[in-house]
Amino acid sequence: MIYVTRREVFAASHRLYNPKLSEAENFEIYDKCSSPNGHGHNFTLEVMVAGEIDKKTGYLIDLKELKNIIRKYIIDKVDHKHLNFDVEFLRGIIPTAENLAIAFWDQLKDKITNGKLYSVKIYETENNYTEYRGE
Amino acid sequence: MIYVTRREVFAASHRLYNPKLSEAENFEIYDKCSSPNGHGHNFTLEVMVAGEIDKKTGYLIDLKELKNIIRKYIIDKVDHKHLNFDVEFLRGIIPTAENLAIAFWDQLKDKITNGKLYSVKIYETENNYTEYRGE
Amino acid sequence: MIYVTRREVFAASHRLYNPKLSEAENFEIYDKCSSPNGHGHNFTLEVMVAGEIDKKTGYLIDLKELKNIIRKYIIDKVDHKHLNFDVEFLRGIIPTAENLAIAFWDQLKDKITNGKLYSVKIYETENNYTEYRGE
Amino acid sequence: MIYVTRREVFAASHRLYNPKLSEAENFEIYDKCSSPNGHGHNFTLEVMVAGEIDKKTGYLIDLKELKNIIRKYIIDKVDHKHLNFDVEFLRGIIPTAENLAIAFWDQLKDKITNGKLYSVKIYETENNYTEYRGE
Amino acid sequence: MIYVTRREVFAASHRLYNPKLSEAENFEIYDKCSSPNGHGHNFTLEVMVAGEIDKKTGYLIDLKELKNIIRKYIIDKVDHKHLNFDVEFLRGIIPTAENLAIAFWDQLKDKITNGKLYSVKIYETENNYTEYRGE
Amino acid sequence: MIYVTRREVFAASHRLYNPKLSEAENFEIYDKCSSPNGHGHNFTLEVMVAGEIDKKTGYLIDLKELKNIIRKYIIDKVDHKHLNFDVEFLRGIIPTAENLAIAFWDQLKDKITNGKLYSVKIYETENNYTEYRGE
Repeated sequence: MIYVTRREVFAASHRLYNPKLSEAENFEIYDKCSSPNGHGHNFTLEVMVAGEIDKKTGYLIDLKELKNIIRKYIIDKVDHKHLNFDVEFLRGIIPTAENLAIAFWDQLKDKITNGKLYSVKIYETENNYTEYRGE
Repeated sequence: MIYVTRREVFAASHRLYNPKLSEAENFEIYDKCSSPNGHGHNFTLEVMVAGEIDKKTGYLIDLKELKNIIRKYIIDKVDHKHLNFDVEFLRGIIPTAENLAIAFWDQLKDKITNGKLYSVKIYETENNYTEYRGE
Repeated sequence: MIYVTRREVFAASHRLYNPKLSEAENFEIYDKCSSPNGHGHNFTLEVMVAGEIDKKTGYLIDLKELKNIIRKYIIDKVDHKHLNFDVEFLRGIIPTAENLAIAFWDQLKDKITNGKLYSVKIYETENNYTEYRGE
Repeated sequence: MIYVTRREVFAASHRLYNPKLSEAENFEIYDKCSSPNGHGHNFTLEVMVAGEIDKKTGYLIDLKELKNIIRKYIIDKVDHKHLNFDVEFLRGIIPTAENLAIAFWDQLKDKITNGKLYSVKIYETENNYTEYRGE
Repeated sequence: MIYVTRREVFAASHRLYNPKLSEAENFEIYDKCSSPNGHGHNFTLEVMVAGEIDKKTGYLIDLKELKNIIRKYIIDKVDHKHLNFDVEFLRGIIPTAENLAIAFWDQLKDKITNGKLYSVKIYETENNYTEYRGE
Repeated sequence: MIYVTRREVFAASHRLYNPKLSEAENFEIYDKCSSPNGHGHNFTLEVMVAGEIDKKTGYLIDLKELKNIIRKYIIDKVDHKHLNFDVEFLRGIIPTAENLAIAFWDQLKDKITNGKLYSVKIYETENNYTEYRGE
């Protein structure tokens, strides 16, 4: 068993906001992260795949293939976008790092066929990251 | 002469958009950076001050003082904000990194009295930065 | 199950020294890390919490809350201090990264109530880190 | 149980190439990574050891000892070398990051006697890393 | 006057070797950097451009344009290559970081027309970099 | 003219304290940086040399030579030491980053004979650095 990880970066806006709650409640929970016009990050995404090495190639998964999957199903849809408004697969989700990690996992899990998706990690800043392993 | 630099980070949204141009012209110039709902970055700001060391303290400028100036006049106004809408001193400015560097310089230049402001550097991503030295 | 991590940095001195051993034995074991007047690091601390997402907020734990817990129970007590002399909860402990990780775990484990403490990681330098998971 | 990690960096060349396949097949699989004269990286190696703390020293393993083992059995043999030609213990292995991680594990696993080898991680670039845990 | 910098990374092999000298003299000068089969790095290239902001766009130079110039005239020619053998514009040059910086400057200086090329910086490792400013 | 930079890291303690002032005045000026038992950092030192390339070698200065000079005259004297007590060439100096940069410059300026010393930069943390250029 071997683990292979690919890092990608995307620049996006989001606003932490639960539409079922009042503005005041949102501000109480999310503080400046609920600023009405949104704010943004250079989000760093790390996708880890686990599996067996292919004897012929010495690869678990070709990193170009992994990169292309991540770009097609995630980066092209979220980069330079507002995560509350512009992304079909995030509709109805409060875009916390926790919820993003799960949503990205769901986007990727059936697309990776050389090895299995093992972990999705999202850095919102250099001081915070969130990881989901499908557990 | 000695140079002292302080780094601060802020998370903000912006949209590159010149209101004097059409949507099509904006998209032609700015491409995905002109995405209508905006996008965001963890902007890194480096402020460099130049001057003489104070013999008594061994400081050019106390870094707590420099940090407080940067936070009061820049970070508190731009962090977790949308730079096109929420920041008084950026009204009427297309928020490119170039224009931000000059606007931040103008905010800071009279506030720093221990030494003189020497450079304002803004990293939009790990791959791009812009510097202004008041020249 | 989701994992959320917060990074904090503190600047401290320490001396690796076992008072039950002679100076010569200490120097034999710890070499320059036992230099009598101590030495220091920018220690980086990563605290990882594991648990379920709160549907209402989309958070496992509010990062402001996690930051405040780490700062109150760790950073405020160790930052700009000498770990052998100045920290109540480190009395009698040889301040290796291993022992610090366990001592920090013990400080934090009952304070975190949204999710459970999963890991405490300490970087002494960019080349070394130690992790404790309460196992 | 505690985990201690040491990072080392080495600069080496490699060419991804399976000698059982034609040049065309190699190029189809490995693309530019199969460029005939090779290419190179600053490979970053992280070696993690797991075990119990020694009460007398407060160490799981002395980092100088861990560093010396890694340098003797890995770094001195691969640094400033071409991994396809110059390294005895890599003969007959396609030097993908996956195969390197396993080969490095095999080099180290019996040499570490304070604690047990837990993980070997190799960063080929800032965007890719591979981990092997002996599973 | 404003300064805009773009960072790019490439993976390449090189061997430090002066063909006018004997193997022994080369080894005396370059030590392990003259290892016959070459070694490699993830070279980091920073290209800085200086000039005036275009009022209409708020740009000194569109970073996409700068990226495309760097990729076309440098990265596409050196990435995943051996710098001693595979690169037309490096023929006859000992590929030290110093010589690479000057050769890259010569490649770029006439291609950048929005602003003027101000600096080419090359990081060979995290511990060394070389800069050329056309002086 | 070319510029070559070498980075080195050292771990040291210091206390910001002017012995001509009272404890209260020291605390007023330096706050927690004047904590009596000292605190520490992983100081990062960058030494930049400027000069002409040697045609025979393609080097301005051999980085091994530059590394050896920095280690002999700086790192071996300050690493794992307390800067207020253990370092001959820092006697009588308040060890602020500003004063360290100048003291290091004075240590190095006559030792570098291939090219001329151009800049000494000291990072105390990832958020602060000081530079001295002999001006």
